[in-house]
Amino acid sequence: MMSYTLWTELRLAPTADPEYVIENACLVEQAGRIAWMGPRHALPAQWQQPVQEHRLGNRWLTPGLIDCHTHLVYGDNRAQEFALRLAGASYEEIARQGGGIVSSVKATRSLDEDQLLAQALRRLDALLDEGVTAIEIKSGYGLNLESERKMLRVARRLGELRPVTVRTTFLGAHALPPEFAGQTDTYLDLVCDQMLPTLAQEGLIDAVDVFCERIAFDLKQSERVLKAAQDLGLPVKMHAEQLSNLGGTELAARYQALSTDHLEYLDEAGIIAMKKAGTVAVLLPGAYYFLRETRLPPIELLRKHGVPMALSTDSNPGTSPCASLLLILNMGSTLFKLTVPEALAGVTRHAAQALGAPDINGELTVGARADFVAWDIESLPELVYWLGLPRCALVVYQGKISRDLRKESS
Amino acid sequence: MMSYTLWTELRLAPTADPEYVIENACLVEQAGRIAWMGPRHALPAQWQQPVQEHRLGNRWLTPGLIDCHTHLVYGDNRAQEFALRLAGASYEEIARQGGGIVSSVKATRSLDEDQLLAQALRRLDALLDEGVTAIEIKSGYGLNLESERKMLRVARRLGELRPVTVRTTFLGAHALPPEFAGQTDTYLDLVCDQMLPTLAQEGLIDAVDVFCERIAFDLKQSERVLKAAQDLGLPVKMHAEQLSNLGGTELAARYQALSTDHLEYLDEAGIIAMKKAGTVAVLLPGAYYFLRETRLPPIELLRKHGVPMALSTDSNPGTSPCASLLLILNMGSTLFKLTVPEALAGVTRHAAQALGAPDINGELTVGARADFVAWDIESLPELVYWLGLPRCALVVYQGKISRDLRKESS
Ligand SMILES: [Zn+2]
Ligand SMILES: [Zn+2]
Repeated sequence: MMSYTLWTELRLAPTADPEYVIENACLVEQAGRIAWMGPRHALPAQWQQPVQEHRLGNRWLTPGLIDCHTHLVYGDNRAQEFALRLAGASYEEIARQGGGIVSSVKATRSLDEDQLLAQALRRLDALLDEGVTAIEIKSGYGLNLESERKMLRVARRLGELRPVTVRTTFLGAHALPPEFAGQTDTYLDLVCDQMLPTLAQEGLIDAVDVFCERIAFDLKQSERVLKAAQDLGLPVKMHAEQLSNLGGTELAARYQALSTDHLEYLDEAGIIAMKKAGTVAVLLPGAYYFLRETRLPPIELLRKHGVPMALSTDSNPGTSPCASLLLILNMGSTLFKLTVPEALAGVTRHAAQALGAPDINGELTVGARADFVAWDIESLPELVYWLGLPRCALVVYQGKISRDLRKESS
Repeated sequence: MMSYTLWTELRLAPTADPEYVIENACLVEQAGRIAWMGPRHALPAQWQQPVQEHRLGNRWLTPGLIDCHTHLVYGDNRAQEFALRLAGASYEEIARQGGGIVSSVKATRSLDEDQLLAQALRRLDALLDEGVTAIEIKSGYGLNLESERKMLRVARRLGELRPVTVRTTFLGAHALPPEFAGQTDTYLDLVCDQMLPTLAQEGLIDAVDVFCERIAFDLKQSERVLKAAQDLGLPVKMHAEQLSNLGGTELAARYQALSTDHLEYLDEAGIIAMKKAGTVAVLLPGAYYFLRETRLPPIELLRKHGVPMALSTDSNPGTSPCASLLLILNMGSTLFKLTVPEALAGVTRHAAQALGAPDINGELTVGARADFVAWDIESLPELVYWLGLPRCALVVYQGKISRDLRKESS
């Protein structure tokens, strides 16, 4: 019989839901998957002679966390622009000094793969230290074939270098690059006819996203991107209804979008369309916080219609320079008033649904990948309650310990 | 000659101000103090043969951070109450289930010193990992002689166990304990005539604080506490103008308060009084965020009158369960619109002024204690800009490395 590992002395929360907990639990891992889990006393005889046993001292165990919407790869940060704005500089002055998204495009284009990788690793490692085991990473600061390829290749390399599943999303339609000013449709020709098929062919694209907004691409332009993705058999996502309601969500739902994201201005018609299409609502309170927004997404209506809600960092240099999914959990509850079970589902099973990765369901079930986290907490709500605490004790990725942050108390 | 250590390859920000930077700097530490600092090329001959040299690879170096307002020691957290409230429980239901400050008092009274210490260490260690080298810790969940003593003794032990300077503040007048309901003045007799002199005599009190608010102690009652402190020669502080304007700030200024704290409802008369008295305005954006407040402290007026502003975690279980001073830096700028230099002064030299500890000025100057932090950043504004990043590379406390978090990039 193939060898297996026994994990014991667990308070097991298989779905990260405080209402479904197995006390005095144990879990059997074999070949990177969960072979059995349940109360210790019910452990079948066949699993009683493990090669290795890890005793976790009655720590809480949850699924690995999933960050399902990030722009983690980019050149340089925008801390100087942040400082200038606080010092009273106007948007014009900042633009004149080369600020805004154009500065991120410029920096991303100018750096090579290794430089982009080194910068992104800092952010990724911070997320991994908090128990993240799967992450989505978008392109969208290259805005030409070569630089979008570079970003996606860096995203793939991050997944090879670190114990985390990376899903790449092509976001060529993030913004209009400066060299195409006034020629949106010409740029979209490039996105749909050249970049997308080429990079898909190279195996760099797991999903396709578009920023549907007055300041970016309108409904008709956005649909071109969705259509091109569909023709290639790629699932789609959309940045929608962040600053206004364009109806992007209903459009995305017609293309069975995995998720629509932001959604501050989403209306009930959009919500009904999402429900029918099985589209996840990805909420991004980090950007809401950082931009000092006051308009909340329609949480109550999403809840009423049973649309799954995910939470994510939206990690990006301009509107959410965030490398803490635990902080986003707190913001989901403090700012958006998600309940604790909703917030926790938002970074586990609902995030998994938005991720759309085969083999990742964001739950601990027999047969599922052994991606889990042990926490130094007394109760699950602590994962949402603290600001700057707690750090996880142990992260396990595909059955192997990938982070051991256990400390002896003194 | 006494041995000394040379710190080289620094980008030195002696006051954490981005406008005052020494590039290619070095610093000489001797007997826990700064013996010399300046550009490498100007290093005098007498410091050229160190016993030890630490090369910091051109990292930024700032003073150690100071958290000048915390309730770090308390029994149990209130994550369950947080979850109940999000699930829609009313304040009455939560009170019936034993929630609110009374639950913290009950838990604090029931735990022994070692238990309180173990819980507080988790929070303290998170702060130390971010470069905190001095912290204020208040009592105020004991509300009787024995339990207030227990809290203050735990605070002192924290400072003995860890490389950090702890300043204790007696906050017996935090709330009316349930057993004194309707007998505020009788309780204050106890605070002023018994607890305060006894605990001061035992060397447990560095400063005295009072919560001046409609839901706590009124002006006249607050003054009794200030007076009792003054009689003992102890400096005072005040929780003031958080939920309404009672004029506590003007009262506190008459007693030359080190600081008044919260201040959302502070008016210009109060600000002028603070300026005259040299009182620091301690701003607590964590509580503002956690309580979803909308009323901002009068930053513009504080700025106009030149009142020093400090930022602090207010770490406490009910309104700011926070163990990240870097997050508070970001909140200070994002929520309160402090500029980057203001935010950084708020956790260094202005926090030092609020702390009132002899020998801590929150700056790196010749003769000052060698408490400093090396950071993995490109520019100082990054300390304020990021959410969940960056972690510091190295913390030095009184000349000795107390945290080495440098990572090799891979
Ligand atoms: Zn985004
Ligand atoms: Zn306080």
